Amino acid sequence: MSKSADADHPIHALIRQRWSPRSFSIRQMTHAQLLSLMEAARWAPSSYNAQPWSFIAALREDKPLFSRLFECLMPGNQRWAGKAGALLLSIAATVDEDGDANRYAFHDAGLASANLILQATSMGLYVHMMGGFNREKARETFQIPEGREPCAMIAVGYLGEADDLPDDLKASETQTRRRVPVNDFLFGDKWNDPPSFLKKGS
Amino acid sequence: MSKSADADHPIHALIRQRWSPRSFSIRQMTHAQLLSLMEAARWAPSSYNAQPWSFIAALREDKPLFSRLFECLMPGNQRWAGKAGALLLSIAATVDEDGDANRYAFHDAGLASANLILQATSMGLYVHMMGGFNREKARETFQIPEGREPCAMIAVGYLGEADDLPDDLKASETQTRRRVPVNDFLFGDKWNDPPSFLKKGS
Repeated sequence: MSKSADADHPIHALIRQRWSPRSFSIRQMTHAQLLSLMEAARWAPSSYNAQPWSFIAALREDKPLFSRLFECLMPGNQRWAGKAGALLLSIAATVDEDGDANRYAFHDAGLASANLILQATSMGLYVHMMGGFNREKARETFQIPEGREPCAMIAVGYLGEADDLPDDLKASETQTRRRVPVNDFLFGDKWNDPPSFLKKGS
Repeated sequence: MSKSADADHPIHALIRQRWSPRSFSIRQMTHAQLLSLMEAARWAPSSYNAQPWSFIAALREDKPLFSRLFECLMPGNQRWAGKAGALLLSIAATVDEDGDANRYAFHDAGLASANLILQATSMGLYVHMMGGFNREKARETFQIPEGREPCAMIAVGYLGEADDLPDDLKASETQTRRRVPVNDFLFGDKWNDPPSFLKKGS
């Protein structure tokens, strides 16, 4: 199944092809693949090169650890994420080494995670990021210290068949991908004002 | 000049090649390129598909708007960013349509910005993200409403010559890119504990 983005302007194939499935194949991932995902995250830019990200990661075959990650998910995500080839938890360093708040911790964890996603896509893998997990349980389970914030959970794997999902999830799996058009979020002279080159007649 | 990442594990060329220069060429960018950057951002994933990002963007030739963006930068960034082919401001929707806080606003603006960076890299462009700008000035200049937070400023353009920079900036332009190794941010059973597959002897 392809859900290639219906793009209005030319974009790179890896960005166009990426989407967030719920159906994963039983095909196994390897630790080498996991390390490439981490390496891609590693080279993301960050404010003052603080690299304010960490990950806890397990392949489905890394049984006890995969289960402990899975147990942190909200029930809705547990309906499908157990079949992923790997589960990860991203963690943002919201306080830096000097004890100062890093306002870019989540932003830069996002930059690193997007690199991870693009790397995965280039290896034929798919990624589904999740905000639906129990942050306090994650903190306790993995002894995450103060100043480090559980950020997102991430399912990675080879694509499965939509037909293998429960009916309600199957519907969302096959629906068209929707985004607001660029005109709705690209502004010029001021908020909500289109840039002059997009204005009618210009 | 190439500053390709010294990667320990295989990563995609676009991720390896990307870095954040301060020296930009006078070669002009086009509005079509700017729209491809926005289109790439558009297709990023986001929590509940909220797409909590907006951008204000100008090419160097879009004179008054480019200047108003430039004026929001901190003096240190003004030393070099005026030669960029385009300047952008990313804005995160920290409050959603129902008036609830979106804890993923910065994270997802980061996901979108990373897509923008990879798209730029694929078009031969370079990107330098900046936290060093005057947020209140940006808010006033562009009449950014409450619940929308100036996030990062972004310089984009073709690569210039390090020799064209002042000496102190030239040094940072040519220095080796540094990252902590994957072992420093990938954990297993608990915080600071390496995953079992990375432990010695396993």
